[in-house]
Amino acid sequence: MAKRLSILGATGSIGQSTLDVVRQHREAFAIEALVANANIAQLAADAREFGAKLAVTADETRYRELKDALAGTGIEVAAGPEAVLEAAAQPVDQIMAAIVGVAGLEPALAALEAGNTILLANKECLVSAGELFMGRAQALGVDVVPVDSEHNAILQCFERRNAARVERIILTASGGPFRTRALEELHGITPEEALKHPNWDMGAKVTIDSATLMNKGLELMEAYHLYPVEVEQLDAIIHPQSIVHSLVAYADGSVLAQLGTPDMRTPIAVALGWPERLATNVARLDLTALGRLVFEPIDEERFPAPRLALETLKRGGTAGAILNAANEVAVEAFLARELPFTRIVGLVEETLNVAERQGLIAPMHGLDEVRAADVQARNLAGELARRRASRAAG
Amino acid sequence: MAKRLSILGATGSIGQSTLDVVRQHREAFAIEALVANANIAQLAADAREFGAKLAVTADETRYRELKDALAGTGIEVAAGPEAVLEAAAQPVDQIMAAIVGVAGLEPALAALEAGNTILLANKECLVSAGELFMGRAQALGVDVVPVDSEHNAILQCFERRNAARVERIILTASGGPFRTRALEELHGITPEEALKHPNWDMGAKVTIDSATLMNKGLELMEAYHLYPVEVEQLDAIIHPQSIVHSLVAYADGSVLAQLGTPDMRTPIAVALGWPERLATNVARLDLTALGRLVFEPIDEERFPAPRLALETLKRGGTAGAILNAANEVAVEAFLARELPFTRIVGLVEETLNVAERQGLIAPMHGLDEVRAADVQARNLAGELARRRASRAAG
Repeated sequence: MAKRLSILGATGSIGQSTLDVVRQHREAFAIEALVANANIAQLAADAREFGAKLAVTADETRYRELKDALAGTGIEVAAGPEAVLEAAAQPVDQIMAAIVGVAGLEPALAALEAGNTILLANKECLVSAGELFMGRAQALGVDVVPVDSEHNAILQCFERRNAARVERIILTASGGPFRTRALEELHGITPEEALKHPNWDMGAKVTIDSATLMNKGLELMEAYHLYPVEVEQLDAIIHPQSIVHSLVAYADGSVLAQLGTPDMRTPIAVALGWPERLATNVARLDLTALGRLVFEPIDEERFPAPRLALETLKRGGTAGAILNAANEVAVEAFLARELPFTRIVGLVEETLNVAERQGLIAPMHGLDEVRAADVQARNLAGELARRRASRAAG
Repeated sequence: MAKRLSILGATGSIGQSTLDVVRQHREAFAIEALVANANIAQLAADAREFGAKLAVTADETRYRELKDALAGTGIEVAAGPEAVLEAAAQPVDQIMAAIVGVAGLEPALAALEAGNTILLANKECLVSAGELFMGRAQALGVDVVPVDSEHNAILQCFERRNAARVERIILTASGGPFRTRALEELHGITPEEALKHPNWDMGAKVTIDSATLMNKGLELMEAYHLYPVEVEQLDAIIHPQSIVHSLVAYADGSVLAQLGTPDMRTPIAVALGWPERLATNVARLDLTALGRLVFEPIDEERFPAPRLALETLKRGGTAGAILNAANEVAVEAFLARELPFTRIVGLVEETLNVAERQGLIAPMHGLDEVRAADVQARNLAGELARRRASRAAG
C-alpha cells in the first residue's frame, strides 16, 4: 500500500529533497498535494512527474499560469492562502510541513487538525507556537516527526519507553563561521562577511542565525517541545564537522548518537519511513577517512543565543514567539547596517525583557495570541533598534 | 516484582561489576545463585550481602570451606562441576554467564536449555559454539543479551524491525599497545613488553589478544552470531579512546552509535535492564572535555586477526572452535617464548588451513563436536608450534 503524501513547500530545498527521496521509492508513495509559492515551473514539473492529485500555489495571481502549465494532465489546480489550508487538510498518511517562516504555521496547524501525520521542517510551529502546536498534536493523537537533522537524530536516539532515564539531550552546533573569532573581532563583522560563509544553500536569515548560534537556540526550543524533557536537560555543544547530528544521554552512562554525512535526504528519508527505514543514495559516512570528530563547548560570552533560548523556554507562553519575531527584526537591522553583529542577540534579549515588563508575555491558547505576540514583538524590537541607532548617531 | 538473577562467575571482574550495579537497585533484583571458582571468601561475602539462595564453587575440594563460611545463613551450598550446571539450570529471569573460557560454555548452555534469559559475557559460547548456542536459543525462544561493551552497543543501535536496512555493523577496537609500531618492530616484542600495557585489569591471554587484535577478530565472530547480518557486513575500525563502543550503519545513510566512558557497569546495567534502563553511578561522558574522537583503519598487514576471523566465519561449522583453541595455544607459546609476536595469528591461520585439509572442520550438531574440535586444534597447533620452534632452532 502506497503512503499518501502531501508536501507544503514543495519547491523549496526540503521539498525538493523530499521528492528526490520519493523518486527512489515511487511505488511506496502516492503524492496527494504539492503546495508551493511562486516557482510555478518547478511546481508544475513536479506535479506532472509524480502524478500529484492537486497542485497549489499560495500566490493567487499565479493561478492561470499554473492552470496552463498543467493543462490536460487532470491534475487539480488551486491558488491562494485558503487553497493552501484546504490542501493541507486533505487527508493523507503523511504531510511534509516545509513552508519557511511564520507563513508555515497556519497550514501546518490545518494539517494537524485534519489528523495528518506531520513531518515537521518548519521551525516556527515549535519556536513560536510550541505549546499550542504540540498541545493540539497530543490532544488529537497526531504524530509530529521532526525533519531537521538534529531533532531527527534525537528521534532515532530517544527511547520513548525509557524517557524517565534520559538525562540529557545534546544538540550539536557547527559553531558558525565566527566560531574562532575573539569577542572584540565579532563586533565589526559586516553583513557581507557574515553572508560569505553559508554552510550550504541557505537564505540570508538562516546564515545569520547560524553565525550568531541563534539557530541552535531555536533548535533547543524545538527539542524542548518535541521531547519530554525539562529545560535543564537540554544542552548544545560545538561540532564543526556536522557529522554527529545530536546525542541522547541516559542514566546508565550510555550516550546514543546519530551520525552521517551532512545531507538532508537522510533525515527526510528517516521521517518518511519512520519507524521503518528507506534506502537512499546519500554518500555513506567513512569515519576512518574522516580521522577525527571534534567537539568544543559553546562560549556563552561570545554566543549568548543558546542560553537566551533556554531562558525563554522557562518564561513559557508567547515568549518563544516574541524571541522569534525580535530575532527576525534584529537580523534585518544587522543586514541593513543598523545594528552591529554583537547586538543581534542583545536586541532580542532586550525585547523579551521589555515585553515581560509590559506584560506582553501571555499564555498561549490559540493562533491569535501567537500572531499578536509576533506583531507586538516586531514593533517593540523595531522601536528598540531605532532608539539604539539614534543614540549611536547622536 | 524483583527479577530473579543468577551469576555464573560471580567473583570475577564481570560478576563483581554486576553485583555493584545490583547494589544500587536492591529492590529490583532477587539473587538466586552465585557461582564462582576458588575465591571462597568473596563468594561467601557476596552470598551473605545479597541474600543469595544458593552459593556454588566449581572446585569440589572447597565445599567444606564454603559451607563453613556460610554456616547459619540458611544459604544453600554446593560444589563441583555438576553443581555448577544445576545452579545454571535453576529457573530465573536472567542469568549472567560470565565464567571465562571454554569452561563457561557448558553452564551457559545448561542455563539456556532451562529457558533462562542469558546475559552473555563468555566469549566461547559464540566464538567456538556460535551455531549451536544461537541455534538452541532460537529454537527455545530464549533471549541472549550481550554484555561485552561492543555487542552491547550494537544491541542499543540495531533496530530489529529494520534488520533488512542494516548495511554494516562497525566494531571499534582500541588498537592495542602496538597500534603505531611498524611491522619490523612488532617481530621482536617480548611477553614482558606485551603484558606491560593492560587496557585495564585483564588476564595475560586477553592482554595478548588485545595486542594482536585477535580480541576484535573474536568479537567480529560474536557479532555475526548475535545479529542477523552477513560476514561482508561486518567491519572493525581503530578507535584508541574506547569511547564509541560500536556503530550500526543503515541504508538511509544514518549511523547509530553508542558512546560512554569505558566502564563495564554501563553495558552490564543495559543488559540487566533491557529493554528498559537502570541508573548507574558511572562517570558521565563529557565530549567537550575530551575534545576529539579519533578513528583509523586497521592495517591488515600488521594486524591480520580481524580478517582471519571473518574468513573463519565463512568456513562455518567448527572452524570457530578451531580458531579459538589454536589462538590459546599460540598465545601460550608466545608467552613461553616459543613463538614470536608476529607469528601468533600466523599459527592460528596455519592450524585452520591444516585442519581444513585434514577434514577436521565439521558441521556443529552438539557440544561433542565443539569439544572434539577444541582438542584436535590444540594438538594440531601445539605440533605446528613445536615444528616451527625446532626449525627455528635447527
